[in-house]
Amino acid sequence: MKDPADRPPDPTPATPGRRAVVLLSGGLDSATTLAIARAEGYAPCALSFRYGQRHHVELEAARLVALSLGALRHEITDIDLALFGGSALTSNIPVPQGRSWAEISEGIPVTYVPARNTVFLAIALAWAETLGAADIFIGVNAVDYSGYPDCRPEFIRAFEAMANLATRAGVEGTRYRIHAPLISLTKAEIIRRGLELGVDYSITRSCYAPDAEGRACGECDSCRIRLAGFAALGISDPATYSP
Amino acid sequence: MKDPADRPPDPTPATPGRRAVVLLSGGLDSATTLAIARAEGYAPCALSFRYGQRHHVELEAARLVALSLGALRHEITDIDLALFGGSALTSNIPVPQGRSWAEISEGIPVTYVPARNTVFLAIALAWAETLGAADIFIGVNAVDYSGYPDCRPEFIRAFEAMANLATRAGVEGTRYRIHAPLISLTKAEIIRRGLELGVDYSITRSCYAPDAEGRACGECDSCRIRLAGFAALGISDPATYSP
Repeated sequence: MKDPADRPPDPTPATPGRRAVVLLSGGLDSATTLAIARAEGYAPCALSFRYGQRHHVELEAARLVALSLGALRHEITDIDLALFGGSALTSNIPVPQGRSWAEISEGIPVTYVPARNTVFLAIALAWAETLGAADIFIGVNAVDYSGYPDCRPEFIRAFEAMANLATRAGVEGTRYRIHAPLISLTKAEIIRRGLELGVDYSITRSCYAPDAEGRACGECDSCRIRLAGFAALGISDPATYSP
Repeated sequence: MKDPADRPPDPTPATPGRRAVVLLSGGLDSATTLAIARAEGYAPCALSFRYGQRHHVELEAARLVALSLGALRHEITDIDLALFGGSALTSNIPVPQGRSWAEISEGIPVTYVPARNTVFLAIALAWAETLGAADIFIGVNAVDYSGYPDCRPEFIRAFEAMANLATRAGVEGTRYRIHAPLISLTKAEIIRRGLELGVDYSITRSCYAPDAEGRACGECDSCRIRLAGFAALGISDPATYSP
């Protein structure tokens, strides 16, 4: 993993445009989303969560991604979703390894965290209102569909409608928009777009079950979908995998 | 303040009925809402938040209320809304004192916390899904209207619609319901209903700016609305006020 602090200064620092809150996990999708928000002229304020996830190495990745892509701000906030259990990402339920494509494509996996995107977007909305931002970006994707109900377009639209009724700014005329720019892209299309925008995928982390040194397992659903995306483009994934 | 532990055991402990998540601040409204949930046959699972509020004495009140009204469970979870600022309840903005009724009835006050009920309901939804509960109770009120956008019926309906798209349980057929049983009641009607259901209002705390000993100020909007509710019934508020 290259530390962006070791590299020359980025030639195109964030412009002081309209602020947008960008949910940033440190994975491939959210890094691409941050790059898209910036390319669309927003000054991205990145928001990450320490929510009891087992794969906390992603937070270090989020920090590097925010630095590398010129986020105006980056906040990491704590939220105790582990209290509620119910997911392989926050409890002792094993993360599935080596599932077939048929298994990956079918149903809602045990890595579903109850209402996670609802909670993340709600807190993003609170921060957006405080910042005077009307735009929130989230890297959900419904094509390489991993079965999460809170990654579907109808969920995003319903959240947006609710957000405009929930807030002082909404009542006073702000029109909140939830941007999900990856929602109809394949994984390969996401990676191609990110590479065009200069995303350094070597510092991103998508694995649900990294090893003790933070290396990706290569076998969980998330790794398999990611690796297939790079393979479809005929390039190799620059992330570090367990030997 | 009487400690429920000093009193004889409650003759009607919570029945093992359908579970419901009840948002419990420790104030008059949420205590009444918990009593209503139980009277409607639910086994209430109370949820409180430590969200950087200055009036943290309300969490001790929440604990006593949950005990006193026979909640099946009571969880207090941390969430850092203070990070985002923007409210007199979580920052150094002064809490208004001694405002006129005209001032109280008009506009959105500085005690508005950005997207607070959205965040609270989102986390309640996460817990409800984990518990297998389909019902969430919140003590919002739109009559003694204190100007909060996230206390309006249209917000509650929009959140409910979103919740049913956000979750695995919603996709699989659960129909989430957000209950706001106080939404069209006056403060006096809320108190009358609570007294019928045995709520001990001496242990509830509504004040936005309690003193160092946890006593209510009597002058903030919340105290004034509460005191007027008791006065309308011709009874005195059993809570403890600063001399």
